[in-house]
Amino acid sequence: MMDRGQAYGDGLFETMRAHRGTLPWWDAHWARLARGGERLGIDLPDQSQLRARAGELLADGGDGVLKLLVIRGGVARGYAPAADAASQWQLERHPLPPPIPGGLRLQWCRTRLSVQPLLAGIKHCNRLEQVLARAECVAAGADEGLACDTDGNVVSATSANLFVLRDGAWLTPPLQRCGVAGTCRAALMAPLDAREAMLDIAAVESAQAVFLCNAVRGILPVANLGARRWSPHPAIAAARAALATLHPGLVPELE
Amino acid sequence: MMDRGQAYGDGLFETMRAHRGTLPWWDAHWARLARGGERLGIDLPDQSQLRARAGELLADGGDGVLKLLVIRGGVARGYAPAADAASQWQLERHPLPPPIPGGLRLQWCRTRLSVQPLLAGIKHCNRLEQVLARAECVAAGADEGLACDTDGNVVSATSANLFVLRDGAWLTPPLQRCGVAGTCRAALMAPLDAREAMLDIAAVESAQAVFLCNAVRGILPVANLGARRWSPHPAIAAARAALATLHPGLVPELE
Repeated sequence: MMDRGQAYGDGLFETMRAHRGTLPWWDAHWARLARGGERLGIDLPDQSQLRARAGELLADGGDGVLKLLVIRGGVARGYAPAADAASQWQLERHPLPPPIPGGLRLQWCRTRLSVQPLLAGIKHCNRLEQVLARAECVAAGADEGLACDTDGNVVSATSANLFVLRDGAWLTPPLQRCGVAGTCRAALMAPLDAREAMLDIAAVESAQAVFLCNAVRGILPVANLGARRWSPHPAIAAARAALATLHPGLVPELE
Repeated sequence: MMDRGQAYGDGLFETMRAHRGTLPWWDAHWARLARGGERLGIDLPDQSQLRARAGELLADGGDGVLKLLVIRGGVARGYAPAADAASQWQLERHPLPPPIPGGLRLQWCRTRLSVQPLLAGIKHCNRLEQVLARAECVAAGADEGLACDTDGNVVSATSANLFVLRDGAWLTPPLQRCGVAGTCRAALMAPLDAREAMLDIAAVESAQAVFLCNAVRGILPVANLGARRWSPHPAIAAARAALATLHPGLVPELE
């Protein structure tokens, strides 16, 4: 029988970097999941049960990625959510993704992201826009793509947040209308003294340095965005060193 | 293991009214599914296999609703779709919904629908906006709700299209930027000599008559929209009679 995840994408997820059998950012991931649950009216499963399952999956003390999916309970017979159906959840362990040596090759996505404040910021399971945008990148041979919203403001990559260095300051797009509020992005704001700023395409292309970040790969320097190329920048090396103190798994990859 | 439906809502669906063991609008549903598959790059399953399964489910020659779900194949390990994974599909039979006597009680939804031409018109599985809008209706005790897009244009109800009678002509909102192009809506355009028109809230509330329609329930007259009330209108009775000639299951309910 179809569940509400399959029928409507009626769920939330988290993708967490495991380090030596632990999840250093569990609390941040849980907090975002809770914000999503409150926004959508999805009851979260019991946290201690999830942590116990995570412990089993990581019992070898190794590294990897845990993906948690929480689907609203009840049948998918119409959009109305049932009042009292317990959420379903799944937790899977996957190996770390292979490193991307030499910096990311990016492109601009033709797919634009719709503006929806009710869904912005949270990590919900309505991700067709990201699927379409990512398919463009694969077709073009790019590692990732940057997407604008339908108003032309730059939002993020398909599965990572964006930071740009302008006039010596780190800037990142606001996420109140569109995009996902990444845990890595949140962790970096204070150490980088970063601030939110609306960015258009020209503001990204004329930046001194650009990186993407997410909770699985940490900071990923950008080598090029279409024809625009960047050399390795000391401010990115400093940001990566700062991040390594916040999550022991997110140390800079050898390049 | 999580599939791409659960992880990303990466699929399409159709909800079809069965009449005496047959699906009178199969071709229209299949055509919309094909448009969705083309837009999203999802391969459709073999049509003859689906029809055979539908025949099994309807072997008693009865009435009901068939829901078809087509999920993009491949693993949910990142947004990128696999090139060669066959789609999964499910087909379920459900009983007809109970009739709603006396006309629908509607409200305006606070939830607005985002504008996304890439996803408009097709019946994809990213439906969190509809879930949120429908939850509002349930909380308020309304049968259904009308939703505007984020620009303030009226789009549709949460699971039905909208027709309004103004100056003796039937109008329905365009669906190039938002909403689902319903099969019942499409079937009614020519018989009603209806045309697409941008409608704001005032244009709906000042209409002479209002109905909703979908492929499961046919034409549903609206009795009230908040404080605005409508009496039964002969133009709606005529529209229902016209529809009954197009789909033998969609005859007017006794009221």
